Order: sequence, then C-alpha cells, then structure tokens
Amino acid sequence: MASPVKDYRQEAAIAQKRRAEAIAAYFTPPKVEESQLPNNLTEYALKSGYYTPEELEIIQTDAEDILAKIANRTWKSLTVTKAFAKAAAYAQELTNCLTEILFTEGFERAQYLDDYLEKTGKTVGPLHGLPISLKDCMVTAPHPSSVGLAALANQPTDKDTLLVTLLRDLGAVFYVKTNIPVAMMMSETINNVFGETRNALHKALSCGGSSGGEGALIAFKGSPLGIGTDIGGSIRIPAAWSYMYGLKPSFGRFPAYGTRSGIPGQEFILAVNGPMSTSLKTLQLYSEAVLGEKHAPWTRDHKVVPIPWRKNVIQPPGRKLRFGIISDHDNMVHGHPPVERALQMTRKALEAQGHEVIDWKPDGHVEIIDHIIEAFHTFGGTAIIDHTSAYGEPVFPSMKGFEAAAKAGEKELGPTKLRNMTIKRNTLQQAYTERWTNSAVDGKGPVDGIIQAVAPQAAPRLGGTQHNLHLGYTGVWNYLDAASCTFPVTFADKNIDKPRDLATFQAISDRDRWIQEDYDPELYHGAPVSLQCAGRRLEEEKVLEMVEVISNALKQAK
Amino acid sequence: MASPVKDYRQEAAIAQKRRAEAIAAYFTPPKVEESQLPNNLTEYALKSGYYTPEELEIIQTDAEDILAKIANRTWKSLTVTKAFAKAAAYAQELTNCLTEILFTEGFERAQYLDDYLEKTGKTVGPLHGLPISLKDCMVTAPHPSSVGLAALANQPTDKDTLLVTLLRDLGAVFYVKTNIPVAMMMSETINNVFGETRNALHKALSCGGSSGGEGALIAFKGSPLGIGTDIGGSIRIPAAWSYMYGLKPSFGRFPAYGTRSGIPGQEFILAVNGPMSTSLKTLQLYSEAVLGEKHAPWTRDHKVVPIPWRKNVIQPPGRKLRFGIISDHDNMVHGHPPVERALQMTRKALEAQGHEVIDWKPDGHVEIIDHIIEAFHTFGGTAIIDHTSAYGEPVFPSMKGFEAAAKAGEKELGPTKLRNMTIKRNTLQQAYTERWTNSAVDGKGPVDGIIQAVAPQAAPRLGGTQHNLHLGYTGVWNYLDAASCTFPVTFADKNIDKPRDLATFQAISDRDRWIQEDYDPELYHGAPVSLQCAGRRLEEEKVLEMVEVISNALKQAK
Repeated sequence: MASPVKDYRQEAAIAQKRRAEAIAAYFTPPKVEESQLPNNLTEYALKSGYYTPEELEIIQTDAEDILAKIANRTWKSLTVTKAFAKAAAYAQELTNCLTEILFTEGFERAQYLDDYLEKTGKTVGPLHGLPISLKDCMVTAPHPSSVGLAALANQPTDKDTLLVTLLRDLGAVFYVKTNIPVAMMMSETINNVFGETRNALHKALSCGGSSGGEGALIAFKGSPLGIGTDIGGSIRIPAAWSYMYGLKPSFGRFPAYGTRSGIPGQEFILAVNGPMSTSLKTLQLYSEAVLGEKHAPWTRDHKVVPIPWRKNVIQPPGRKLRFGIISDHDNMVHGHPPVERALQMTRKALEAQGHEVIDWKPDGHVEIIDHIIEAFHTFGGTAIIDHTSAYGEPVFPSMKGFEAAAKAGEKELGPTKLRNMTIKRNTLQQAYTERWTNSAVDGKGPVDGIIQAVAPQAAPRLGGTQHNLHLGYTGVWNYLDAASCTFPVTFADKNIDKPRDLATFQAISDRDRWIQEDYDPELYHGAPVSLQCAGRRLEEEKVLEMVEVISNALKQAK
Repeated sequence: MASPVKDYRQEAAIAQKRRAEAIAAYFTPPKVEESQLPNNLTEYALKSGYYTPEELEIIQTDAEDILAKIANRTWKSLTVTKAFAKAAAYAQELTNCLTEILFTEGFERAQYLDDYLEKTGKTVGPLHGLPISLKDCMVTAPHPSSVGLAALANQPTDKDTLLVTLLRDLGAVFYVKTNIPVAMMMSETINNVFGETRNALHKALSCGGSSGGEGALIAFKGSPLGIGTDIGGSIRIPAAWSYMYGLKPSFGRFPAYGTRSGIPGQEFILAVNGPMSTSLKTLQLYSEAVLGEKHAPWTRDHKVVPIPWRKNVIQPPGRKLRFGIISDHDNMVHGHPPVERALQMTRKALEAQGHEVIDWKPDGHVEIIDHIIEAFHTFGGTAIIDHTSAYGEPVFPSMKGFEAAAKAGEKELGPTKLRNMTIKRNTLQQAYTERWTNSAVDGKGPVDGIIQAVAPQAAPRLGGTQHNLHLGYTGVWNYLDAASCTFPVTFADKNIDKPRDLATFQAISDRDRWIQEDYDPELYHGAPVSLQCAGRRLEEEKVLEMVEVISNALKQAK
C-alpha cells in the first residue's frame, strides 16, 4: 500500500460537479427541506406536481407496454426517455442514486430511433426505444466508470461493455448510470466519490448494494428496467430492499465481457449481470431479447454458453411444483420478524395452490459463506486497497477485511493455497448438487426451487450493514452459481411484526443477536419485504417461471 | 521440495508386480525377441496365432456393432470382454500400455450384464456390455490411480470418478486402465512407475500423451473405446499418433468430477475428458449415451452445462461448409513433410466436394502457447515436484519447467499475478472469439471449423519430444476451450515425403529447425498421420459432424 498521492475529495468534487451540471442542463427538480419529506420518496415525488400527466403515465408504465406503445407509434422514444430522465433527475435529488449522466446522447439516440421507425416503419430490435438504466460498472465510453473508487472517478473509458453494445443493437436507449458502493463490495450503496444512496421507498433505510443505485432509481419510477451485477447478492439485495424482481443468472448465460470489476481478474467467485424491474414480464422480455438467436451472444462473448432463451420450460404446463424453503435461519442468522412472516406467507400461499413446500436444510451454508468471504479478501485485498490508499480514501467498516488482506500483499496467496481453495470450492459445490438431485423422493423429482430470504432485514437502516453484514442468504447462490430471482411479498408492519423476546431468543452467534437487537418495529414500519427463489445452475427460465407461480399464489392469497 | 523419504523404485516394483500378476492370472501372451518384431505391432499380433478366429472378429469389430450383437444376443458381453482383455494383455506385453488390471471385476460385471439381459430381455442402458478402457486418472476404487507418480502408485482409492459411475449405469464394463506420463504433463507416455509406452503401429515411435496408453491399446485392437483426458493435447496427440478419432470437448460438456488430476485444483486451463476410438460413429454413440436426458449428467456433476446431445446440427443437411486451415506453420513451428502433405490432401478433398477452405492465420497463437506453458508451471510446480522429489524421482527433460517453478515455491504466485494472468487469458480468448465471428464475409457465415495439424510430427521417435516439445498445435484449443476432434488421413511415405532442404529452410526458431532436422524419411516411413478439426466452444456435435464430412471427402478422394 502506497502513501496517498492524491486526494479523493478532489476527485469526488470533479465527478459530482460533472454530474450536477449534466443534470442541470436539462432539469431542475424542486428542492425541499429534508424534514418535510415523508419516508416514501417515490409516493412523494409522484404527487409533487413535478411531473405532467403524460410523464406520470409514462414512468408508471411497464417496459413491455412502453415498447408496444413506441412500436405502434403511440409514444415517441424521445418523449419516454425524457420522462424517465426527468424522473431520474428527481431521484438523484432525493436519493442520490446516479453517477454518470448520459442525457444528451440518450436523447439523440431516442430521436434517431424515432426517425428510423418513422422512415422505415420498422423497429431496430425488440428493445426499440426503451430507456434502460445501467449500473456504474457498465462501460459507456468515454464516460468514466468509477465503480466507487476515486482513482477511476474521472478517467475516461475507451470501449463499451459488450452487453452495452448488444443492448444498443437491440434498440435500447442509455440515459443514466447508477451508484454503487466502493469497488461494489458492500451490501449498501455508499462510496467516497458520489456518497450514499438511500431507499426510495423509505428514506431512513438502505437501498442495498451493490446495484443500489438501480434499486433506488427503479423504485422511484426513474427507470423501467435496469442492469445490475451480482457476485454475493448485488442484484438481489437492492432488488429485494426496493420491492422488485431482480434476476441473478448463472455465469455464462448473459454476456459480461468488458464489465468493469471491483476486483479485475477475480474469478474464484463469478460475477454476473442481470435485469432488475418492478415487472416480472420485463425480466422475461429482456432475457428473451438478449439471448435471441439473431444476435447470438455466444458468438460475441467467449464465456457465454450457447443456450437460447427457452419458453414454457416447466412441463407439463401448470404442474404442481416442489419447493424447498429455508424459513428459520441459515445456521448463521435469523431473519427479522417481517422477513419470517413473508416466508410463512409464501409457504401458505403455495400450499393453498397445491404446491409442495418442504423444509430445506441449509447444510454447508456456513462453510460456503466463510469461504466466499475468504475468497473476496484473498483475491481482492490489494486490488481494492491499492486504489483507495493511493487517494487517501477512508475504508468503510464492512471492508476492513480487504485492508487486512492487502497488508499481507502478494503473500496472501500462493499456488498451493489457490489449488486447495479451488478443490474445497468444487467439493462443496458438488456436494450441494448431489444433495439437490437426491431430494427426489417417493417417485417425485428433486425440488424445483429453493425459497429463501435475501437478507435478515426487510431493508436495514442506513449504515446498518457496516458492522453486521450478512451475505449468507445471497452469497451461497453465487458460490453455487445458481440462478436466483427476487420477488416482492409484503411490507413490514409494526402492528404485526413484533420483536422477538430477546430474553428467551436463542441466538446462533453474536451477529445473530446484534441483528435481532437492531429490529425496531417503528423504524422499519413500511419497509419492503422481498424473498428469492433459487433454481439450479443455468435454469434462468425456470426460475422466472417459478417466480411467476409464486407471485400469482401470493396474489391469490391476498 | 523435501529430500526424498522413499524410493520410487520400490513403488514401481510393487505396482509392476501387481500388474503382472493380475494379467498372469488369466493370460500368458507369447514372448518374442525384440529384434524379431516388425514396426507394426498390431499387424504382427493379429497374425501371430495368439487369437482364436472369434476373438479376431470381436476385437476388430466397432463398438456400435458390438453393442448391437450383445443386445441381440449374438455375442455375450463376457466373451467380448475376455477377447479384449486377452488383446490388452498382449498389448501390454508389446507396448507397455497398461497400469491397473481390472480383469476379475470386469468379467464379473460382464457376466452380470449377460444374466440381466437373459433374465429380463432388456439391456441396462445404451452401453450394455461394452468393454471400455480408462485412462489411469479415472478412479475405479479401490484400485490405485498413480497418474504416473510413485507417491500415488500403490495408494488405494475410495471413490469412483463420477464418469465411471455414470458409464457403469449406462452398461459399460471396465477391464483395464492405461498408462500416462508423469502427472500427465508430457506429450509422450513415460513415467518412473510403469515405464514407457510405445506406438502399436510403429514400435520406434511414441504413442503420444498424456492419454498414450489409450492410444496404443486402441490401435492394438485391445479396446473398442477408451476415455482420455486433455489439458494441452492429451487426447488428440495420442489419438493422432495412433491414427484414430479423439474428441476433446469443451469444459462442462462431459462430467469430470472426481477425475484424478496431475495438478489438483488447477483450473486456469481446464482439463476435460473425451472418447477415443478408431470409429467416428463410436464417438457419436458414446456422446449421445453420456449426454442423454435420462441420466442427465448436469444434475449429477456441478460443472456440466445442461445441453443434451443434439443430432444433425449442421443445417440444412449437406450444406457446403467453410473451413479455415492452418496449413503451413503456427508462427512457431512448421510441420514435418508428411503432416504438410496430409493438410494439402484434406484441403483438396474438401474443395473437390464443394466446401470452401480458406487460410486461417494463427494470430495470437504464440502468446497463447507462451501463456499456457507459464500457467502449467506456475500452478503446477510444487504440486508435481513435491510428489516426485519425495520419492527421488528423476525429472524428465520436458518437465524441467515445473522444477524451476517449484523452486520458487509459494512465491511463484500472488493475488496480483493471478488476476493479471486471468485478465490476459480472458482478453486473448475474447479476441479469438471476435475474430472467428468476424470471419463472416460476403453474406457467408463465419468459418464452421478450423483444420490444423495435431503436432509437427506424424508421430515422433520415442523420446523425441523431451527436448523439442511443441504443444502449439493442440494447446491453443485448450486455452480457447474449443471442441476439437482428430481424424486419420494417411501414412508417412519415404518415397513421397522428402525432407526439406535445410540449407534454404527459413526456420522460425531454433526449435523449428531442430524439429525439421529430426525428420528422417526412413525412420518415419509408415507413421500414421492425423489432423484435427476445431469448432467453437461447446460445439461438440458440430465438430463430429464436420469430421464426418472431412473423412468422407478424404475417402472420396482416394
């Protein structure tokens, strides 16, 4: 670790000025006293009078309907893009969810697509004219891609992420990039360049991370569809905490080449990208568009497997499913009362529809989570801390493990340690695969999916994971390279979700106790509660179909 | 590196005695003076009077016909297995191609399968009763799996390789395991435990490696189908040098869990397994059986991708194909004259059938090969040398790089070096993928496959790669994780394949010159010449279909 040679505050000031000016060139959202704001910023904004009726309609329309209305020329892409850009500007004002502003090129692109459709009568592709928000790590040259590091905050980039190119070919319009934590390695969104992003649905709570800017922006109605990335929960945590669907696919399903990484070259745990939206259909539409035969991403990205998107993979249609559920704890941490209630609601709703729900033991989860954290620190220590220390960036409490590993430097890893880590990982992965397959009983097949909470909290208070970070509910599915998708269930309710009796509570660990002690029904009232359903490796279609079954069951149960 | 604590010669003696006794319990192949043997040991054995007419028929029948004859009860599995076991015993005598002998359990298994068919009228699966030979690294507990290391030569094993279990479920019979080089990291088959294996078709030549025992055994008619593994050419080199088909699939297509590795936990370059046979149909039959929906290996092995085996992937059927060909050199080494002739024959044969053959530039091959060798040494140094030095094993010349890396020990790798190596590899892989896709021109799609030699030599003299090892023709496809399959073309002919004029030859490097200097038309006369056709990642079906097209074109041209 070198002594600081530059000051992160200077880089932050430059980046924030660039952001402010790029917004101010088009929009001036109203300022408001913080104390005047209710918890739910989205509701506040929608009723604020800031939007025209047409804008209100547009930003509350799902992507599939937006695409249809653009294609049939009811709406112009430019009109739609401007409406979402205006909402994004306001989202930035109220939640601080943006990094780079691409309004000018977004509007030009939308105009081009409108002209193209006007002239040819054809769309350029299945995403024609749709504004899509991008997590900061998606490179849109020449804009910087800081991934929350001062060292990169003002460095221009020179080559688009492959997915960005592909989405553009499919018709997408890019207009904003969204905030992330330092090196994208925390589960709430805060960094020394752009600051902290808060939850659009509850201003006292975290929006999660690392794709937290996406979560806040989409929940605020500032985007109909966003692209996040996930290496330990980074799509699912913010999607869950902002009450939406977020698909973490298996590695190699969606193109990822050229995405900026917090730990470049780290592949012990594989980073993936996936869509986030308040509409499940939008996730399906997106996946089908990206994995179409025409653009065949497996011919464009070396790591993509040649499996085009499939429909109706659950056969015969409508068959009753078998779910495992982890409804209590994962041998590490219990969920907060609203989270446990959501699990019970989901179990009951599925059983009411004739599906089977069995308790799934979290065997191996402790070893897996210990190992994933060891891996992040081992491979990521110097990669991250060399950057932060060069700019004098303070290290956030939940990232102290990286600092310790960076002190060991190149001694942190040797060939023998690497090989032993790999053998251990493969052994744990294989054991889980065998256990899943062996869950077949009595002539019934193995469980179709496994339902689990996304985090112990519905959504924790701002800063709430810095000392009690628990990646256990999400990281296990990264380690297993499983497909998993979040789904909204309910909201925390102080009248129902009473705290545990801590006098009799049998905590598994200190952290388990601290997390339960943090539960405050008053503070958390109204917090969104979402869960996830994991499928097997490369079963993205099935996971989305299962989530549809679950969401329909929950609707029926209401 | 520790000082030797045990003597490899003791371990070798124990292992060789075990082998000799297990063979002698059933067979006593005739001894013959070495000077009496012709070059072609296979022909010699077939005419030696050692086999009965029925045995001669059986061991010269392809797997697909054997399976049909067992299924329709023309032949018993036990009869077939005994015939191949008898041939294997003779192959051992003449080529030294075996390690562990599984005759007793093989005969019991064959008897069981015969009884099962007799009783039920049904086969247990698509490989019912077929003897399959296994490379030594396939674990068949409790037999040792030395992978050519004295340290492991007499250690019992406790869990079968997953593929072994799967093949057994499909009906296979195991009767022998086959010889390999030290840690499976040389391209000819020699080790300090079991000694050297020679080429069954030409006794002065190497059988290649690391699946060299398979190559020799199959060429000798001692096996209708063998399973090899490939991390730098280890299926293709011995398959080519023994004039047969050998499929190196992409990683994750076939189950590999539980295979003993020469460098356990090394995944920078991915090891794969695949079938070897003198019959191309046998490779297809095997692949279809293993990747069937019924046994769904993707539910049994964590790393297997869920892509069942597909038929007729080249569409429309019979369409004219576009091939790239590397017909001169790979920017490192030229082929020997018989190899260059085989490339020209193949090009002409394909063009005569209306296929397009364009020159394919080996751009990036030098960087790729330098990197793959760096990776083997970096990750494998201590892994291998700690074993060999503990038993005082001499290090073969072509493995000196491992020794040097082992001296650096754990300092050989740190997190930064690992990450930079990974970034470099991914960049080179992606560049190749883009170049392949961009080979589309004039409304024609990208090249379907790339034809290249497997090695500079048709098959080199014994020991011939110890000082002039060139993995360039094969390793590039491992690095790119491409599917590739060998195919036989011709035999070296001293009357046609004249040496280059070394006075005017423009060598690319010293090694290139040494390899050309080694060419001797008299010695190499009759050496088998095979080539390979590489497809894209996970295009195993297409590769086999392309090889069928090529082989048919070569037949037509004769």
